[in-house]
Amino acid sequence: MAAVHPLDPLTPQEISLVAHIVRNSFPSNNLIFRAITLWEPPKKELIPYLEAERLKERLPTPPPRIAQVLFYVDKAAQYRRGRVDLGQKKVTDIKNLDGHHAYVDAGEMKKCEKACLDDSRVQAAIKALQLPEAAVVVCEPWTYSPDGMNDMTRRCVICFFYMKLSPHGDANHYAFPLEFIAELSDEMKVMQVLKVPSGVNDKMVTADASTLRPFDRTKIHTTSEYHPDLATERRTTVKPLTVSQPLGPSFQTSGNLINWEKWRFRVGFNYREGLIIHDVTYDNRRVFHRLSSSEMFVPYGDPRAPYPRKAAFDFGNDGAGVNANNLGLGCDCLGHIKYFHFWHHTNDGVPTKMSNVVCCHEIDDGILWKHTNYRTDNAVVTRSRVLVLQTVITVSNYEYIFAFQFNQAAEISYEVRATGILSTASIDRGDSVPFGTIVAPGVMAPYHQHLFSLRIDPAIDGYENSIMVEESHPMPVEDPKSMTNVGYITQNEFVENETPLDTDNRVGRVFKIVNEKIKNPVTGGPVGYKLVPHYSQMLLAHPSSYHSIRSEFGDYPIWVTRHHDDELFAAGEHTLQSTTGSGVATWIKSRKDNPESVRNQDLVLWHTFGTTHNPRVEDWPVMPVEKMTVGLKPVNFFTRNPALDVPISKQADNKSVLVEDDAGKGCCGTTARL
Amino acid sequence: MAAVHPLDPLTPQEISLVAHIVRNSFPSNNLIFRAITLWEPPKKELIPYLEAERLKERLPTPPPRIAQVLFYVDKAAQYRRGRVDLGQKKVTDIKNLDGHHAYVDAGEMKKCEKACLDDSRVQAAIKALQLPEAAVVVCEPWTYSPDGMNDMTRRCVICFFYMKLSPHGDANHYAFPLEFIAELSDEMKVMQVLKVPSGVNDKMVTADASTLRPFDRTKIHTTSEYHPDLATERRTTVKPLTVSQPLGPSFQTSGNLINWEKWRFRVGFNYREGLIIHDVTYDNRRVFHRLSSSEMFVPYGDPRAPYPRKAAFDFGNDGAGVNANNLGLGCDCLGHIKYFHFWHHTNDGVPTKMSNVVCCHEIDDGILWKHTNYRTDNAVVTRSRVLVLQTVITVSNYEYIFAFQFNQAAEISYEVRATGILSTASIDRGDSVPFGTIVAPGVMAPYHQHLFSLRIDPAIDGYENSIMVEESHPMPVEDPKSMTNVGYITQNEFVENETPLDTDNRVGRVFKIVNEKIKNPVTGGPVGYKLVPHYSQMLLAHPSSYHSIRSEFGDYPIWVTRHHDDELFAAGEHTLQSTTGSGVATWIKSRKDNPESVRNQDLVLWHTFGTTHNPRVEDWPVMPVEKMTVGLKPVNFFTRNPALDVPISKQADNKSVLVEDDAGKGCCGTTARL
Repeated sequence: MAAVHPLDPLTPQEISLVAHIVRNSFPSNNLIFRAITLWEPPKKELIPYLEAERLKERLPTPPPRIAQVLFYVDKAAQYRRGRVDLGQKKVTDIKNLDGHHAYVDAGEMKKCEKACLDDSRVQAAIKALQLPEAAVVVCEPWTYSPDGMNDMTRRCVICFFYMKLSPHGDANHYAFPLEFIAELSDEMKVMQVLKVPSGVNDKMVTADASTLRPFDRTKIHTTSEYHPDLATERRTTVKPLTVSQPLGPSFQTSGNLINWEKWRFRVGFNYREGLIIHDVTYDNRRVFHRLSSSEMFVPYGDPRAPYPRKAAFDFGNDGAGVNANNLGLGCDCLGHIKYFHFWHHTNDGVPTKMSNVVCCHEIDDGILWKHTNYRTDNAVVTRSRVLVLQTVITVSNYEYIFAFQFNQAAEISYEVRATGILSTASIDRGDSVPFGTIVAPGVMAPYHQHLFSLRIDPAIDGYENSIMVEESHPMPVEDPKSMTNVGYITQNEFVENETPLDTDNRVGRVFKIVNEKIKNPVTGGPVGYKLVPHYSQMLLAHPSSYHSIRSEFGDYPIWVTRHHDDELFAAGEHTLQSTTGSGVATWIKSRKDNPESVRNQDLVLWHTFGTTHNPRVEDWPVMPVEKMTVGLKPVNFFTRNPALDVPISKQADNKSVLVEDDAGKGCCGTTARL
Repeated sequence: MAAVHPLDPLTPQEISLVAHIVRNSFPSNNLIFRAITLWEPPKKELIPYLEAERLKERLPTPPPRIAQVLFYVDKAAQYRRGRVDLGQKKVTDIKNLDGHHAYVDAGEMKKCEKACLDDSRVQAAIKALQLPEAAVVVCEPWTYSPDGMNDMTRRCVICFFYMKLSPHGDANHYAFPLEFIAELSDEMKVMQVLKVPSGVNDKMVTADASTLRPFDRTKIHTTSEYHPDLATERRTTVKPLTVSQPLGPSFQTSGNLINWEKWRFRVGFNYREGLIIHDVTYDNRRVFHRLSSSEMFVPYGDPRAPYPRKAAFDFGNDGAGVNANNLGLGCDCLGHIKYFHFWHHTNDGVPTKMSNVVCCHEIDDGILWKHTNYRTDNAVVTRSRVLVLQTVITVSNYEYIFAFQFNQAAEISYEVRATGILSTASIDRGDSVPFGTIVAPGVMAPYHQHLFSLRIDPAIDGYENSIMVEESHPMPVEDPKSMTNVGYITQNEFVENETPLDTDNRVGRVFKIVNEKIKNPVTGGPVGYKLVPHYSQMLLAHPSSYHSIRSEFGDYPIWVTRHHDDELFAAGEHTLQSTTGSGVATWIKSRKDNPESVRNQDLVLWHTFGTTHNPRVEDWPVMPVEKMTVGLKPVNFFTRNPALDVPISKQADNKSVLVEDDAGKGCCGTTARL
């Protein structure tokens, strides 16, 4: 067991110790631990340590090991943050977070479900629906998004209701949305039971026997199941395909450190961001200090009450780390798989293992580079091997697959795949709405957006970088009739101060992170990496809306800020039921009288991207992945193609199999030969 | 051997027969055959045949088998097109193409090289450069792009010159651009030898001993080789990764027909477009009639003479088919590979086999869909298997990898990868230009664009389709201060007449191909497929320029036209030295007085996309692939996720290997176990 690294997530021993220390500070209270997590060392303390590692120099004393603790003192309304110095074994910086709310975890969700289903008004509502005999009602708690209609200061949950017509645990309840909701207080008390709209012009009213109608039997259908026990029709035409790596993987790991094809980086993980990539070097040159999924926002476009309350900050309200899947061997990846395990804890501070929440494996990605000399007919081709660091999260109905992919040309891709089940609402048969798609009888999947924020803390040959925005423009024209008006040039402008920016494919806008002090010896310009954005529609909600006020990062695809140790989350630290902005726009605004330069400074680049997801019926009952990819590519960082030395692709290594003409004809007519 | 299908490319017997028939029509002339290729049956004759096949009805008499022949009568200036009815064995439709020019082929290029190097003025220019003793001069012919400076009516070639300092056949001559060019007539006569600019403000002048300077020895370097014989430093860290398919591939082929995972389509190929996908059905429903790469334009941004002449229509001027690589087993693909072979011919009409120019294989593409029920902790996950139809072309310095990828969710991706070697020009040491990047000492890689045109001939449940443009817009706001202004809706507008269109991610613009007559029983709307565009910068050259006039399709990312059998090429049929437009804009304009409806009609959707390629030094001496991907996805075409029946991913099938903690430590410390 290697010594703990300053960037390693907390060990179970550390978690226990932190809980013990904090509990000792509040001897007469009942503490409910919401998060015990590494408080990463301040960058200025961390850098000397990382630099000594990189330069293989004698390591300085590591920065103090600090834990951040979020906890309730007796009850949720008394929400506190503390920091614990694990060396000195003492609590520092206790902060009163009254008015803010901790994320909602799965344990809490289960308690909400039970509290709702046990409630007499909920039971009365269910009774009023006169459900089919086989019905099993399912309660689906959601974090509550303020809509201006209600008291938003107390922590509460909104619960939707569905039914299943099968006792099977994995029957798809989203196929039968029911027409009422419950509002649940943090004390697990049902506050209101409300009938939700089902016709296009319906209003939300109190749910009772006079407003609720019997469940429309014509909505009953059997085509919305996805679990193999229930959707038994399976194609049998897919023949096995396996990956062999007879000499093992090409990566080496030591604790959370990974070395692969000149890349070296450290895997991090916490309850909120999930997978983090720290301290990335290529060929021992610094490239990125920290890469993380900063936030994700899923606002829904149905304006009818109560649906404006559906607007999930999946990281801030729920947590990517705590919702990470245990990735099964041979299911979520193919080949030689290394899994990473991290630790969370119970509300009592008892460590709980999160097994296999990050996987690491290699894939073949086709041709990396090729040239055929037509004069000699000689082809030289290399194949692209890619290292994938993947985590999959479940947030109620939806799944997200986040993957950092490193290649041999010193490029990083950040791929997001959205899958899972649409969050549905009831709709009257024959009706339609302009903000949703009918995906099954009586089932409406509302339009919504998925907006992700990738936080890029760069270290391009050092920690002081600049952002250079390049555009390609036609050269000024002397004779507007000349047929040789073909010249075009790049215009490069440095970003001087913190600011949001737009993407614009029409002018070929490229965002380069450069180190102005390090010149490329070949090109003469600064060394850099460029962001290859995922072009997306930004937030559709009106600027007056809570969605816009709260999310902030959804308004622009690019944000540039100075680095601050405590600015990690694009929509702010406390998103649950937030009513004001506290994210990237707020930070910039708060410094506007004294704007912070981002030129030759320690800066952070944020990329907002995503999808306006107007559901297709093909997304039902479970959605084929929608892929989004962001690139980070060297741009005059090296002196030539860094993948020039990748081995030439040869059949001797690749052992492909020739398929004979008309192979596979008939039921077992494979005539492959080597 | 199956009978010839109406869409099969010509057989060698047919090519020979065509040559024989045409030659007999011109008994006293010397015929030079430029292209003998299938003239695909008119769509109205073809459809009844394809429909009978699809419906497994008795096949009607196939349409007449017609060849298109492009040939010279004695000389290039007498350029003719003919059609040969292979049944009737006679030539029809002889058309005089005087004023147009046939594409330039590799044989011609080699002749140009020799003619130039044998020319005394060229030799004098070389002498004036006082090259190093080891220098081997290489001549690089390019098709000639009109620039308004010269007589453009005669067919000619522009030749650039480079040198190698190694006798090795694959030494990278692009590393040493020389400072002169030659203009060569079609009769292989050098017309002019010109000194090209090397400083930023240089003008083109006649090349002779007074204008040419000795080669600057400080430009000599050894870092620009890519061939393994010459660039011997290779990383040794990549361990083998092979793909096993113990039961063979999941696809079946019969001639050029492919069946795979409910997809069924026919592979086509010709000298110009290369790979074509015909008659695509999914689960026996019509989806696309024909998918093809229609054209590709590579205009350069260096405005100094002679560089405006560098603007290549790689399909029209050179041909994707004739320049397709012979794909080596285990080099360009991995797994079980089926190759397709097609036939071209010599100038004498003798058939020549093009072996392995298309490959077909399956890949694993990670997770296809997943859902984890947090209540039961049960995860259901499927893996995505993808069928790849790939062709790789070399056009002088550059390589392009074109792949149609079919997946199990009824989606098609069209992926283009650009790789190969930058076309370079000489630059004085210490100088720089605003329209190019220095990639090695004295080597400037000019800015340029790659613009591709994907031609999509749809058949969404039939041949009469419409284009519906969807945008997502906020709902009108009643109270501009309301915090519930979150609603958004889609606005759908049909395209009525032929037109170009813009992409616009800011309004989430989606281009749907729909069949208005076929309603989706679940959603109530029309069945359709949507185009997922690759957002790109359009042509930068000024509208007055030949680049703009000639390319046409480069001005807009989307074009909608009515189908016409003879409108296959977005920049027109005859691109070589064209001086007027004859492509997609011209067709629309020619019908503007009587505009053709594209609503419920046989229409074609064209997508222009590409990259503004301002070279990075990382693109040198050979470029890591730059990927561009266009998607075609069902949108309310099915009644639910068509991949719902894909087998559940299981370790029993996938046989992944667990990598133990800290595996791979040390030189051979792999401790993988099953």
